[in-house]
Formats: sequence, structure tokens, C-alpha cells
Amino acid sequence: MKNILENIETQYFKFDKLVLESGKELKDVTIAYETYGKMNENKSNAVLIVHAFSGDANAAGFHKGASKPGWWDNMIGPGKAFDTDKYFVICSNILAGCSGSTGPASINPSTGKPYALDFPVVTVADMVAGQKKLVDHLGIKKLLSVAGGSMGGMQVLQWAVSYPEALCSAIPIATTMKHSPQQIAFNEVARQSIMADVKWNNGNYYDTKQSPDSGLAIARMIGHITYMSDTSMEEKFSRKRKENNAPSGFASDFEVEGYLRYRGDSFVKRFDANSYLYITKAMDLFDVSGKNFVKTAKNKDTNFLVISFQSDWLYPSYQSEDIVKQLKLKGYNATYIEIKSTYGHDAFLLEVEDETKLVKHFLEKVYKEAENG
Amino acid sequence: MKNILENIETQYFKFDKLVLESGKELKDVTIAYETYGKMNENKSNAVLIVHAFSGDANAAGFHKGASKPGWWDNMIGPGKAFDTDKYFVICSNILAGCSGSTGPASINPSTGKPYALDFPVVTVADMVAGQKKLVDHLGIKKLLSVAGGSMGGMQVLQWAVSYPEALCSAIPIATTMKHSPQQIAFNEVARQSIMADVKWNNGNYYDTKQSPDSGLAIARMIGHITYMSDTSMEEKFSRKRKENNAPSGFASDFEVEGYLRYRGDSFVKRFDANSYLYITKAMDLFDVSGKNFVKTAKNKDTNFLVISFQSDWLYPSYQSEDIVKQLKLKGYNATYIEIKSTYGHDAFLLEVEDETKLVKHFLEKVYKEAENG
Repeated sequence: MKNILENIETQYFKFDKLVLESGKELKDVTIAYETYGKMNENKSNAVLIVHAFSGDANAAGFHKGASKPGWWDNMIGPGKAFDTDKYFVICSNILAGCSGSTGPASINPSTGKPYALDFPVVTVADMVAGQKKLVDHLGIKKLLSVAGGSMGGMQVLQWAVSYPEALCSAIPIATTMKHSPQQIAFNEVARQSIMADVKWNNGNYYDTKQSPDSGLAIARMIGHITYMSDTSMEEKFSRKRKENNAPSGFASDFEVEGYLRYRGDSFVKRFDANSYLYITKAMDLFDVSGKNFVKTAKNKDTNFLVISFQSDWLYPSYQSEDIVKQLKLKGYNATYIEIKSTYGHDAFLLEVEDETKLVKHFLEKVYKEAENG
Repeated sequence: MKNILENIETQYFKFDKLVLESGKELKDVTIAYETYGKMNENKSNAVLIVHAFSGDANAAGFHKGASKPGWWDNMIGPGKAFDTDKYFVICSNILAGCSGSTGPASINPSTGKPYALDFPVVTVADMVAGQKKLVDHLGIKKLLSVAGGSMGGMQVLQWAVSYPEALCSAIPIATTMKHSPQQIAFNEVARQSIMADVKWNNGNYYDTKQSPDSGLAIARMIGHITYMSDTSMEEKFSRKRKENNAPSGFASDFEVEGYLRYRGDSFVKRFDANSYLYITKAMDLFDVSGKNFVKTAKNKDTNFLVISFQSDWLYPSYQSEDIVKQLKLKGYNATYIEIKSTYGHDAFLLEVEDETKLVKHFLEKVYKEAENG
């Protein structure tokens, strides 16, 4: 059997409305999603993958003609951690995103024009509520697992808070119950950078021929610094110069500068600036700590696998340890592993070998228990 | 005796030209400086204070009518760490700065207009060369010490490289022999933010009625995140909300957001955007590691006091440890202390009690040796 998923297609689930946490209604909602593998007869082998801040529904496999596979392809596929020979894997683009699901760039049905800042503030709970509708639509009563890193991990925790009865297990990776002021601060500076770009035009740039690319690129550059570690940057760039060797004023003198500019410039081709604002705000508002945390004790059979990475300073291990502590205090089954890595926050996408072993064994055990339970 | 320095005035030292490291000549140079305390008869009690990135010549005391003292007033004055009853303390604004010394906002004598980007790239060695001219002008053959934190620490190290014979001792604080790619990256994003502001206008904004305030404010906000630690932000802000309690779109919801905006906005009132570019570039280009480091063995009587702070992640302790290692390998006297602190990089301005003890004892010893030696 080939271990490559080919000719993957994004599908679109549409529904009338979603009542948001704020009480507002979002109408004519679309959720872009993909599935990999086959659902078994009693629909007990479904795993929901939830993506990080800038991800999309294409978690695995190649779209027709694509040169690159999905963003977590090294973890999802035949024989891989999320083994599509065994499990039915689903991934959807989050609400407020810009890769097929309804977001600020979508048409506002009440005006016929893009929402822009008329798009309501959505929360991580709203994103998860949208996913729940998709899961219901697919006829799945209980997910074998929900898994994701970074902001994906927040959605995992939110699933456990909102729909504990619909989960056999949960895998929050490199994440937190709530953003620290430092995490909020990095997001805020990124938002300020977008909003300071005159082309942002208070969010109304969809009908103009220009978009706030400079501001969005700078926001992404800030992001990339936080995704890497001091060590991984040293290993990758050190103080290597670009070809323009002499001090050349304010062009890129160092390779790290060129790298950041490149990452910023390529990001603006695929991402919407208003989505950046809405999604980072949802992250900052997210807080399932304290009394917000998994309230019901009735579903203590949900198993948690919590993973963090040693050099991740954006979502440091102490935040995962806090999650584990809360879970244990509530009497849940929680396994916690801190994986050794120098990759920083990016490690959740790169430390495939250790992650694969952990996830594989965990899912096998959960699946066995669910089938026999 | 009062322990407040009052009626402090900035003085201006002017000279014809400075030949820069690049070979270019900077003409009609002004260096703004202040002095505190009295020079002794044989001019052996002079201590040069070198300032960090956004500092100025007013290191201590109150200008007439000023409500705030100089930036390191808690360390400099009668009975303080740099005791002005004993020592003659000097502080000058760096070249390329914007607080009295010649920089990109100064008039270019060959055009009669502000330099803007015609200002030459200056290095930390050039800044120190300017300080050496001032020290010569004051008739001082050998400084008792040169001390400073952050970029000030780089100047301290550069003094030891450029003019080892002119130093009895050196106190580099919270600094590095060279910027890591992460440090370069933060500076680069800040520069990009300024240059992305349309009002920057390729550096030519002095004659217009507008300046790149938005870009400069964002640059400063990024800086402030790196000056604090995760812990100090948690202690100061946690997730406290501003008065506008409800999720309010993209206004400041959290106190940390309001704080950053405030710091950004107040910074633009006192700082020049082009100076930001030139000074951060000088920091990034600075590298006295390896074969660049203090070459001459003839002046091994120079004493070093190297200080770092535990929670400083912008200039982490390992960079100070590298300095100490290089000094020890060359046979220099070096004392190294890592001060416990949760303040992050800001600690060098805030951990006054420990710093005072360390500096006070160190200077007393050096002074005694210099007088008897």
C-alpha cells in the first residue's frame, strides 16, 4: 500500500446559522474540511485534527497537481501517527479563517459585500461549535480523539470543556489554558502592525486593489521569531551574511533578516489580514483555566495526552504542566510528556519521530478501550 | 550633604571630524555630555557611563525644572554605586543618537539639510571613538572605569578592545560580544516596521510635517516585550482587563495592550526613527568575539566586573558567561555575577540594591589599586 494520500479534495459543509458565544448569529456558514481514511461501521474511529493559527483544512496528502502535502502530512497517513488505515481523520478550517471557512473576507449575506470588520468577534468556543456541527453532520456521536498543537491545542481543550461526552480522548500539544500577558503582547504588536498599515483602511480593503501586505508581513515576521528558539536560530543562521557582504545600510545584511522577509512576503499571498486580527483576538480571549475548566465529572473516562517541547518559549512547558495539574485535580487520566527539542514552538510540526510514537501508542490504547468498553 | 544632583546641564563638545571604521569622514561632530562630581587633581577618578539603545547624556540628576532625574540616577550620585563624592562621572549621548549628539537628524554640513539616510553607517567602535575624543578633551589619560548595560555593555567591551591602555577597569552589564540571530531578528522586525510606514518616506521626513510615528511606536512595543520577562509581565499585568470590559473588537482589551501602546506613543515624542535604524544596525554589526576580542596582552591589569540577570532572555546569561570565558582565557581579571531577578532585561535598571553593592566594592578596590599602583 502506498503511504501517500493523493488527489485529496477540500469539501464544504454549509449550514444556516451559528449562534455565537456573544449571542450574535452568524448566518450562511461554510466550513471547509477534508477527510482521510475510512469511517468504520459504528463510526467509532473518527479523529478530529484541529489546526494552529495559520493552518487550513489540508492537514494531509496532496491536492491534485500540488507540489506540497498538507501541513501535518508527516503525522497523518497510512501507517503514520494518525494512521489512516485504521482511523477516519477529519480536519476543518476554523471559523474566521481565510481558507474556505466563513471569515471576515466572506460575503456578508445581509449586505452582499465582504464582512470586513462587520464580522463578529468569534471565540475558540465558537470555532469548536462549528466543528461540532460538522462532526454531527458526519453522523459521529463520539470522536475517538481530537488533536492539535498551539492554537489547535486550545481547540482541543475547548472540546473537552464544551463537549466532554463527545470525546474518548484529547491530545493538546504545545498549548495553554490561557494566554499569558507576554503571549497577548506579541499578538497585540502584530495586530498593531496590520492596523498601522494605511492600506488596511479600517479593514475595508477587499474592494480596493491594495491590501495591508507590509503590516501583515511584519506581523508574520514577529510570529516567526517566536516560533523558533534562540538555539535553532543559531543552528540555522548564526551570524551568516547574505551575499551583499558589506554593511549596506538597511538592506538585509544577515541571512536571518532575509529569511524573515521571505517568510513575511510569502505569508501575505495566502493569508487575510482581517483573519489575522480575528483569530489572534480569539486566542487572547481564550481562557479555560480555573472555574472555566472541564466542569463535568461525569466523563472522567476521557484520556488526555499532553505534549510540550523543551525549547518552546512561546508556549513554555509550565503551561502544559498547568493543564496536567488541573486534569489530575479533576480526576482525569492524563499522560504528560515534555519532548526534548531545540526547535522551539515549531517542534510540534518537526519532532515527528517522538510525537509519532506517543500518539500511535496512545490512540491504539484508547481505540482498544473504546471498542471493548 | 544632599544626595540629589540638581541643576544638571548638558554640555556640548564639538570637533572637526571623526574618521569612521568604514573609512568615511563625519564632519562637524557634536557630542552631548554631562558630568557629575569633581575630577581629582591627577585626573584618576573618572568613570565613563555609556548608555543603552535609547538612552541619553542625562544619566543622573535633575535638569532645571525637570520632574524626572536621569536614566541611571538610582546608581549615580552622592553615596550611590557610582559615588559622585569620590568619582568624576561622565555620560555622553552616542553618535547616531538623537539627544544632542550628531546623528541622522543633524544638519549635513555639505548640504545644509538634515542627513537622513545620507548619514553614514556608524559602528559601536565609531561611537566609542567619539567618546575617546571627549575623554581626551577632558584631559583624562586613563579612565578609572567604563560601565554600562545592554548596548552600553557593548561599548564597554569595545573600549577594552579599542583603548585597553586607557582603562583601569570595565563593567559590562547584561550584554554580549555579538548579537545572536534572534537578537538581530528582533531588531530587523523593528526596522522593517519603521520602514513600512509610508511617512518614513525613505528617511526623508524631517522637512515634512509628518514622521513615521506608527512604525516607530510598533518598533518600541516589540522592544518592550523583549525588555520584560514572562514572569514580570505576569506579575505586572496578568490577564487584567482594561475598563472596556467586553470583547471590543480590536481596541485594547487587556492592560498589557494599553501599556504597550502607551510606551510606544510616548517613545515617538523623544526618539528619531532614523536614529532607531542606525543604532540597531550598529548593534547587529557589533562583534568582538573570537579574534576580534581584546587582542593586546600588555594591559592585563584591567579588571572586569561582568553582570547578568537570571530572567533576562534578550541578553541571556550564557552571553555574559561567554565574555567571562574569553577574558579568563586571555588572562584577565574577571569577576562574574548573575543577579537573581524576575525583571528580565530591564533588571539592569531596576535591581539597584545588588548592583550597587557589586559596583561600589569593585570600584573602591580598583581605585585603591590605581592610586597605590
